[in-house]
Amino acid sequence: MTDFAPHRLLAASEVPAWDVETDVAIVGFGIAGACAAIEAAEAGAKVTLFEATSGSGGASALSGGEMYIGGGGGTDAQRAAGFADTTEALEGYLMMAGGPDADPAKVRLYAAESLDHYQWLKDQGVPYKGSFLPGKIIEPAEDDTLIWSGSEAAWPFAETATPAPRGHTIQWMGWGGGRKLIDILETRVRALGVNVHTDARTLCLVGDKGRVVGVVVRIDGKPLYVRASKGVILATGGFCMNAEMVRRYAPGALRASEPIGENDNGSGILMGMAAGGDAIHMDEFFTTCPWIMPESLVKGIFVNERGQRFINEDCYHGRVSRTMLDQPGERVFLLVDNEIFGRPIDLARIEIAAVGDSWAEVERELGLPEATLAATVETFNRYAAEGHDPIYRKAPEWLKVLDRGPFAALELNFKTSFFSFFTLGGLNTLPTGEVLDRAGAPVAGLYAAGRATCGLPRWGYGYSSGMSLADGSFFGRMAGRRAATAVGESIVR
Amino acid sequence: MTDFAPHRLLAASEVPAWDVETDVAIVGFGIAGACAAIEAAEAGAKVTLFEATSGSGGASALSGGEMYIGGGGGTDAQRAAGFADTTEALEGYLMMAGGPDADPAKVRLYAAESLDHYQWLKDQGVPYKGSFLPGKIIEPAEDDTLIWSGSEAAWPFAETATPAPRGHTIQWMGWGGGRKLIDILETRVRALGVNVHTDARTLCLVGDKGRVVGVVVRIDGKPLYVRASKGVILATGGFCMNAEMVRRYAPGALRASEPIGENDNGSGILMGMAAGGDAIHMDEFFTTCPWIMPESLVKGIFVNERGQRFINEDCYHGRVSRTMLDQPGERVFLLVDNEIFGRPIDLARIEIAAVGDSWAEVERELGLPEATLAATVETFNRYAAEGHDPIYRKAPEWLKVLDRGPFAALELNFKTSFFSFFTLGGLNTLPTGEVLDRAGAPVAGLYAAGRATCGLPRWGYGYSSGMSLADGSFFGRMAGRRAATAVGESIVR
Repeated sequence: MTDFAPHRLLAASEVPAWDVETDVAIVGFGIAGACAAIEAAEAGAKVTLFEATSGSGGASALSGGEMYIGGGGGTDAQRAAGFADTTEALEGYLMMAGGPDADPAKVRLYAAESLDHYQWLKDQGVPYKGSFLPGKIIEPAEDDTLIWSGSEAAWPFAETATPAPRGHTIQWMGWGGGRKLIDILETRVRALGVNVHTDARTLCLVGDKGRVVGVVVRIDGKPLYVRASKGVILATGGFCMNAEMVRRYAPGALRASEPIGENDNGSGILMGMAAGGDAIHMDEFFTTCPWIMPESLVKGIFVNERGQRFINEDCYHGRVSRTMLDQPGERVFLLVDNEIFGRPIDLARIEIAAVGDSWAEVERELGLPEATLAATVETFNRYAAEGHDPIYRKAPEWLKVLDRGPFAALELNFKTSFFSFFTLGGLNTLPTGEVLDRAGAPVAGLYAAGRATCGLPRWGYGYSSGMSLADGSFFGRMAGRRAATAVGESIVR
Repeated sequence: MTDFAPHRLLAASEVPAWDVETDVAIVGFGIAGACAAIEAAEAGAKVTLFEATSGSGGASALSGGEMYIGGGGGTDAQRAAGFADTTEALEGYLMMAGGPDADPAKVRLYAAESLDHYQWLKDQGVPYKGSFLPGKIIEPAEDDTLIWSGSEAAWPFAETATPAPRGHTIQWMGWGGGRKLIDILETRVRALGVNVHTDARTLCLVGDKGRVVGVVVRIDGKPLYVRASKGVILATGGFCMNAEMVRRYAPGALRASEPIGENDNGSGILMGMAAGGDAIHMDEFFTTCPWIMPESLVKGIFVNERGQRFINEDCYHGRVSRTMLDQPGERVFLLVDNEIFGRPIDLARIEIAAVGDSWAEVERELGLPEATLAATVETFNRYAAEGHDPIYRKAPEWLKVLDRGPFAALELNFKTSFFSFFTLGGLNTLPTGEVLDRAGAPVAGLYAAGRATCGLPRWGYGYSSGMSLADGSFFGRMAGRRAATAVGESIVR
């Protein structure tokens, strides 16, 4: 009996017979797989898609259906809201957001083609209302389109790239439009004649003389040998739901409590590595605790257990949350006065840790040393009264003197509050979706997209809402197109 | 012409003929390779060692020749100094020092056998004077043995593991005893009849049916095909000198300026991955700027560009330095008063950034916002006067009220000061040195030790002097012993 495992590349010589022959095999039916399938099928390839669960969706269907889009003078929604977004600004922001090893080739291509991609989504039938919601929002509460979904207007990003809101949400009443987004794309996939297999878990890749030539898929308990003459596209998602991989590759994420995924077990990353692909920035992860609801809380300031501030609180909530996890101790406190206090949403599991009529009283109630938290607030307040924050550079519109008692410290506890996370590391790919080996050369016949790859989002401090769907959909398309037009190679035994 | 590259496993079928046949092939002649060779040869194996440079040494020869040793009631040096070190305390410290994914199997074995390993080193001819130097020391200035080489006595380590000094330095006048250590081991290697090739760069591993069966080595410009019937041991060091790998796998280290290595280009890690080995914690690195000389400076306090403290300064200098690199901005300041001021060693490239008759004046001179640095010192001083530091828990013996002006801020600048670094991530191995694949199964015929692996030291915040030499020497021995006694397999073509 052949021993199948994602980390083992099966040799073509071990394949008893090919059960299925296709041009392009796609593994995973989230947004990356769906978009890859559409492009590959439209390019004329015979496409077969395998999904391990019983239906389409993956982590994409759990999302808000929001995409990071802009540049080129602005989308309809951006222009209507008065933002003539530039490609240069989009590129500049994405480069900063990508961190110390941002991928300039992917960033440049995406920035240049972002508007076209938006049009493509519309062409698939994805509706956008076109309306703009100002302020700090996690997802539109109704069916609006455009929101500020990153740190564009915050220091230091705003100094480098002209700010614009770029989160574009599918028209859908309430949170969770990701499901509708996937449904629309699935309709397209099926209309194009893609052969979709669900409950079909891909066990491993098949390789032959340095080229990936197929996959083995388990269907109805039996291995199905699938030859893919033009290539295999891995669109399997990240590894946040594989506890062992998280401990091994992204132990920093162990501080976050809630993996956001559907079947994000890292199998595609392991399969890609087994074929010689390189996996990079595996330690990076997105995390957030939804602390910005109600929005007035953004006017509070965060301190750690030493009573120290650690970031400008007007950054994207995920950037703030990621920085929280770097703080010493097990919790951080959001300090608010009576004017801005509001009960955080239940989902966040943020509790009131202390209240007092003075900041010194709050400090004492939290058990912090004297003149730590209170001194931090005093200094902050003095500058806020002057309308600036020379220490962490919070923008004036979010500055407020915290002097209207009673005062409260809201506790965000790494163990008990809701810190969602997913992984950002994965296979290193070209903008075309070709998986690269450790020397930077493509692994013939192998493509990947979405969170199985290390894409536009690859730095936890730079993540912005909509980046992962944008990356998965756009580079999924690129992979589908490239694989479909690849010159297939015959399998030499 | 065959295309050799470390990231490509050569198939045995591509080997025209074996030029050399050996039992165990060892790649790299630093301390891990030397110790592996001694054990393998003593176990009766025919051992061939390939070193890419012109002689033995590697990064080990650049070191102080200090090893992290203890437990079991204490070494002779520890007992003479009054420290009855326990195995439990050594194990507890190493587990904390290993960070969130410490390797309990390696830690347990090393803690249990540390004293025997010390004896083994002596048996090879390594001399130890047996004397103890108290205080904060980077390396003994003369030929003494025992120093505090980690954060044992500092919070939070001291709360979990009973402190003891464990840095054991070879008897050698002055810094740099690592060269002598290697020379002694090389003498043993050669006396045991190990076939040593220098100027012999290993190009790739050779694999056959899932087993590593040999290496290809370039000697005199020609490829030499070496069959290793019992196994190959990679002892090639880390990747701090491979700028591309650092950017890709450990971008955090880009903030440190000075790679400490000899030929640490990551080739062994790439070769191991090509054979199916897993590389883990690749983002972790050791860094230090030698800021604790003169020792009186440890009584100062560090603040970042926001004027905030960030650690108890009595931790190991490397832990403090690693935490520096996490701070916002490009520099941190060591605040000292006239009583403890001393000119830092030239090597460190630490400059005086500001002086003043009050901390407020220093704050102003640095251009920091009012009541940031000065408030930090004021709060620190008030508690220091009471003999404690409730904020960052610096131990009382290093606490000093910083009130004897004039005052100074010494600047440690990430771009211009001397921040040495080397990488801590590498191949995942069993305590026996067997390289593990991504599913946790050994790659047949492949072993590794030293910084080509992820060993005892695997977390930049936990590194302590002597950990890497201890890890490389001890687990090098384990790998040599295991490979020598492996059941070799014949090569089936």
